[in-house]
Parts: sequence; C-alpha cells; structure tokens
Amino acid sequence: MAVEKNDWSDPLSVAGVKLGVAASGIKYADRNDTAVMIFEEGTRVAGVFTKNAFAAAPISICRQHLAHTNDIRALIINSGNANACTGEAGYKAAVRSCVSMAELLSVNPEQILPFSTGVIGELLPIEKLEKGLPLAVSAAEESNWEVFAKAIMTTDTRPKAAGKQISLSGKNITISGVSKGSGMINPNMATMLAYVATDASVSADILEKVSLIAAQQSFNRITIDGDTSTNDSCVIAATGKSGASEIDSDSHPDYKVFLSAVIEVYQSLAKQIVQDGEGATKFIEINVSGGQTQKESMAVAYAIAHSPLIKTAAAASDPNWGRIVAAIGYADVDGLDASNITVKLDDVLIVENGGKASSYREEDGQRIFDQESFTINVDLGRGSASEQLWTSDLTHEYIRINAEYRS
Amino acid sequence: MAVEKNDWSDPLSVAGVKLGVAASGIKYADRNDTAVMIFEEGTRVAGVFTKNAFAAAPISICRQHLAHTNDIRALIINSGNANACTGEAGYKAAVRSCVSMAELLSVNPEQILPFSTGVIGELLPIEKLEKGLPLAVSAAEESNWEVFAKAIMTTDTRPKAAGKQISLSGKNITISGVSKGSGMINPNMATMLAYVATDASVSADILEKVSLIAAQQSFNRITIDGDTSTNDSCVIAATGKSGASEIDSDSHPDYKVFLSAVIEVYQSLAKQIVQDGEGATKFIEINVSGGQTQKESMAVAYAIAHSPLIKTAAAASDPNWGRIVAAIGYADVDGLDASNITVKLDDVLIVENGGKASSYREEDGQRIFDQESFTINVDLGRGSASEQLWTSDLTHEYIRINAEYRS
Repeated sequence: MAVEKNDWSDPLSVAGVKLGVAASGIKYADRNDTAVMIFEEGTRVAGVFTKNAFAAAPISICRQHLAHTNDIRALIINSGNANACTGEAGYKAAVRSCVSMAELLSVNPEQILPFSTGVIGELLPIEKLEKGLPLAVSAAEESNWEVFAKAIMTTDTRPKAAGKQISLSGKNITISGVSKGSGMINPNMATMLAYVATDASVSADILEKVSLIAAQQSFNRITIDGDTSTNDSCVIAATGKSGASEIDSDSHPDYKVFLSAVIEVYQSLAKQIVQDGEGATKFIEINVSGGQTQKESMAVAYAIAHSPLIKTAAAASDPNWGRIVAAIGYADVDGLDASNITVKLDDVLIVENGGKASSYREEDGQRIFDQESFTINVDLGRGSASEQLWTSDLTHEYIRINAEYRS
Repeated sequence: MAVEKNDWSDPLSVAGVKLGVAASGIKYADRNDTAVMIFEEGTRVAGVFTKNAFAAAPISICRQHLAHTNDIRALIINSGNANACTGEAGYKAAVRSCVSMAELLSVNPEQILPFSTGVIGELLPIEKLEKGLPLAVSAAEESNWEVFAKAIMTTDTRPKAAGKQISLSGKNITISGVSKGSGMINPNMATMLAYVATDASVSADILEKVSLIAAQQSFNRITIDGDTSTNDSCVIAATGKSGASEIDSDSHPDYKVFLSAVIEVYQSLAKQIVQDGEGATKFIEINVSGGQTQKESMAVAYAIAHSPLIKTAAAASDPNWGRIVAAIGYADVDGLDASNITVKLDDVLIVENGGKASSYREEDGQRIFDQESFTINVDLGRGSASEQLWTSDLTHEYIRINAEYRS
C-alpha cells in the first residue's frame, strides 16, 4: 500500500476502528460536519495538541481525558465551528458533547475526545451536534475513511489520507490516517487535525512516545505562514487487533520498524497539508545542516520558511538567492560566519565564501525554481546539527482567500 | 518646524552639513545614484548597523572607521548596487570609494563612511562611482536635502524627511533627517537607510548613546515582513555649529530635551518607511502592555505584526479578531493565561475573560478596520512591561511587486 492516497480504492480499514459521519447543520445545511471514530475496548490512544495559549475548549478536555484514562473509546470531530475563545459556555458545550457520545456508546464521558474546527469565537451549537451524533454512530463502519476525511475538511480542496502496511512478528499491520488543514491559511477554518489508527498492539507509554516523535518529525516541520491554530491536534490509536505482540518498550524488536512506518504516514499527511495550502503552487523543502545546535539549524530553517520575500520569489519562479542569504543572515544565530556557509538549490551551488558561487549561473537556478517542488539546502559549516522544514510559496491566491474570507 | 516633511519649502539645512548628488550610472543612466554628506571638522558621528550575518562590505568598513576615529568627515551613499555578498572584491571596492572621497576632501580614508543599497551579489562598479564622486562633492550645498533624499531612494515611492527645531541653552537647534526604504519589501533594493544631522554640540559618547536609544525606539520597532536587509544603517551627525553648550553627559540639562527631539525625528522617519511599504494600505500600531518582561511583550507584538493572516485581514478591512488571539496564543510566552488577556482595537474592547467581550459588536470592529490607521492594544495582565511596534497590511500589491521584481 502506498503511503499517500491518490485514490480510495485501496481500503484504509483498520480492525477495531469504525468511522461514521452525519450532517448536523452546524454551519451549513446538507454538509457532513460531524465525524466519529469509534474504537473497540483495549485500544490505546495518544496525541499532541496545540501549544496556543488560547487553546480551544475541546483541547483542554482532550488533555484532561487522556490524563485520566488509558481507555479512550471514541473521537468526535465537528467542522464549521472551532469552539475557541468561547469561555465557560464553550467548555460546557464540549463537555456535553462527550456526555452525549458516552451515552450512545454506554461508556464514560472521560472515554471520549472532542475536536472542533471552524470559526473562532462563536458558541458551538451543541443541540445540533447532539442530533447528529446518533446518526454518525449508527452509520459507523470500518470502511468509512473517505467520508470521514471529507467530513473534517474546511477550506481543504481535497481529502488527505495515507496508509502503510508492514509486517511485525509475522503479522500484517495496517497504519492508516487522515488529516485536514490547508496550510494554516485560515486558522479560523484551517486548524490542522490528523487522526491515525493502527491494529498494532502498543503499550500506552510507547504509543505516547511514538506520537511525540512522529509529530515532531512531521506536523512540527510544516509551516505555511507561521501561524499555529487554537485547535491543532494529532491523535494516534492502536487497537491491538492484528494479534502481533505488544510493543511495550523501545527495545522491543518491532519498535523501530513500527516507529519508522508511523513517521512515514505522519509525514505524508503533513506534506499533503502543505501541498493543499490554498493558493500554494510550490512545495519547498528546506534542509539546514552544519549547525552547532538543532535550535540554531531550526532558526535558520524557519527564517527561510517564513520569509515572505523568498515565498513570493518562489511563486514567481524567480531564483532570487539574495533573499535566501539575507534570511540566513538575520536568523539571529550568534557568531555566524558568512564565509563558511554554502547554499544549494537542489544540487546547484549558489553561495559559498560569503558570496555568489563562481560556478553559479542564473539559468541553473531558474531550472530549479521552475519546478513545482525543490529543496533549499543550507550548510552553516560550524557543526553537525541538521533540521528540515517543508513549506509552500506565497501567491496572489493566498491574499485573495484571506482577504475575502468572512466577506 | 513640523516633524514630518509634507513639502520641501521649509528648509532642513543644518549648519556644518553640505549635501551633494550625482548620476554615476551605477544601474540606470541619468538617475542621481550617488549622494555625499560632508561635515565640517569637529563633527561627531554615531550609527547603528544591521546585525545580518551577511552584512555588506560597506557595513564592515563603517564599523571599522567609527571604531578608529571620532572625526568622520563625509558619508558616501550609492543606490543601484548593495555591494553585499560580493566577497573580497566587494570589500576592496568599498575601501577604494573611501580613498577616492578622502582625496577629494584632503582627509584620511578612515574619515569616510560608505553605504550602498541595491541589488545583492553584483560587484559595485567602482569606476563609475569614482567618476560621480567629484561631481557630487562640487555640487554640495547646505540646502540640498531634497535631492539627497531622492538620490538614495530605490523602490520608495516618495522621499522621506523629518525636521525639528528646539531651543537648547537659549540657542536654536535644528535636527534634520532623511530615510529610505519601502518596508523591506525588496531587501535587494529596499535596505533601510537613515541619515540625521544636527547643529547641536554633543560628545561622542553621548551621541553614541542617543543613536542607540533613538534607533531602538524607532527603526527597531518597524516591521513589514520580518526581513532585515544586509545593508540597514542609521547614522547621526552632530556638528556643534549652533553654539549651544556641549551635551557631554546624560545629566546635562539639555540631554533629555535633545534625546526626545531626536527620537521624534527618528520615529517620523521610521513610520514614513512603513507608510511607504509598496502595496501597503494600512498603518497599524501594536501596543502590548502587562507583560512580565519586555521580551515577552515584544514577542507578542511581533507575533501579531508578522502574522500574514492578520495583515491580510487588515488589507481587507476585516476585523477578524480570532486571528489576533491566535497570534497572541502562539507567541510562545510561558504560562500565558488567556483569561487575563484583554484586546482592544483602538478603544473598542474585543477580547476579555478568554473570549469575545460581551460588549463587542462587529460593527464597532468594522469601524476601526475601515480606517487607514489603527491600533491593536493587548494587555497580557501579568506585569508592567510594555512594547510597541508599527507595521502595515499585506496586499495583492505586495505579492505583485515581489513576484515581478527582477523579471
């Protein structure tokens, strides 16, 4: 099974996971805006959540519930309303959605994780959501990944999914996932959400560790415009239904293979978000090596990734390398020596010895920038710390979407 | 004399300072691209320079010369070429420009400060500049501020100047200045440069101190897109020709009045750069109070100022307050409690108690965002540290300019 889903004929089904959707009319009529993911008993769940100080009400509840129990039985996701900046009333609405879902499944409210994505600052219409939940539950099936991926979309232009099959201890293991987000372009509408499920058997501690590492190497490495939403979440569930032996420590023989496969799925889901940035026409990978610390390599990578000047140059297919060196220069790395830095576009050397490489010719840079996807490779020449980021370009379409949103 | 120059009938002349321009053909024919500012003996000069690790050759030379002598006699500025990322050859060209100018004035090369602004990575055509310098020197007059301001322009749509007259020890003092830069929109072409001169008498130490404080409260508080050029510089010269007593310590009776007037001139020059950001249609002041430290207040101010989402909302006159709270939330301030934060647009309260203020009505926010200039006032509610930034909106025109530049 390929990692990225280009069609939906290849089922993502994971034993022990059922998905259902419904149209609750939260923001629009006749649009599936309510999605549930239901797990069989014994499933382990872990997640990472936004660090935004204005984290939405459901985020607080997810954190509480995960701290309280190892036995999460369902996720509820609504689109159309972020339930963020909604104060006490918003918190109560999110709690109430968990209570309703728990009643439907005959479990405790603490066993439900709620998620919301949509407009900030408007109260979640909980009565509408409560009408949709039983419909979504009764529609739940293992094969429903595509409708699920579509129901959680907001400004996304296409559903995003990834799947991978591996063999662990002689058993076939499936890792499937979906994500939504169109590059933080509209954080009111474009929260990044990702839900991954596997039939591998993984202890709670190890799943937590895998979740953190995989998120760090995927969703924490994409950046469109530097904005982090109030609702960003990434959750992984392991049902254990494959029958493979439980991965209960990082020295377990299956640990590395499993971690690597999860990272692959997470990275595919993350890159698909960058590629679906509305208005985005280029996919740019930024590799910074030769730093003294990870922190300084990441600072340089972010300086490049967040430079509107580089992103507009990319949109125009203009290999304006001066903007790249300027961004490296202002990344605020102490004692950076420009004369030790090299910059390549894919394999084309553009900067060395503090200036334009003597071998560099404009047409070589042009050839790289004409591509839909290219890499900017920076070597700081002072250490061995490497970091990587993925981003997109900045286009007229970005401005149009963001200026016209809500109007 | 008003601080901002709306017309040029009010002379900016400063006793002891002559300005001249010439067309050297550095990038374009028949355009004044060479400017000199010549000081009488005894003038004190101080400056602040870009921290960019790829600082241009002339920046290094300015730092060396200022460390070497207290007796700077002239500035040379060329537009059309930044002499940045030009390696050893670029350094030699900048040194040679100082040697040529020194010969014309019969002073030492260390008494000259060179500045360049324009395209990065192309060698400065020093022979052309050397032909222009004698023309500029012979044309130098005290009244030439307007042609000087125009000669240093690159993508600027208008020359920028500010002047103020104050009385110190019974003497009339003039503080005049010009700046260039159109909001870091094209760092290859839009280096920020500012030159201020006064006939006040100021000791070298105190001028250095005034230069740092004034730059910190002006040019270090403007941000268009977060990019810092390889050539940014801000210089102040004090000729002492007014006859007022020398300000030789920060307890001198004239110190505070002088500092305050210099800050006013610097702030006017800085704000004019924001207002001239190509494509900019809004001027936004961001005030963050109630921080535990200056650093955290500044981090929140920058998060807002650099958010493309807020800047596109501003361009569209859309009071999308959710984007403002999201930016505050991701500013990475430890332990920020959303429930203590208030946000106002001018005097309109929009956020309190972790959510939308109950008194807030969309039409009030709309009224603020419809203005060409407004403030975003954030109180973090946990201390007494305040910071301030000025920025502009992000428009289609920004993308057009940056995408089409060089094409």
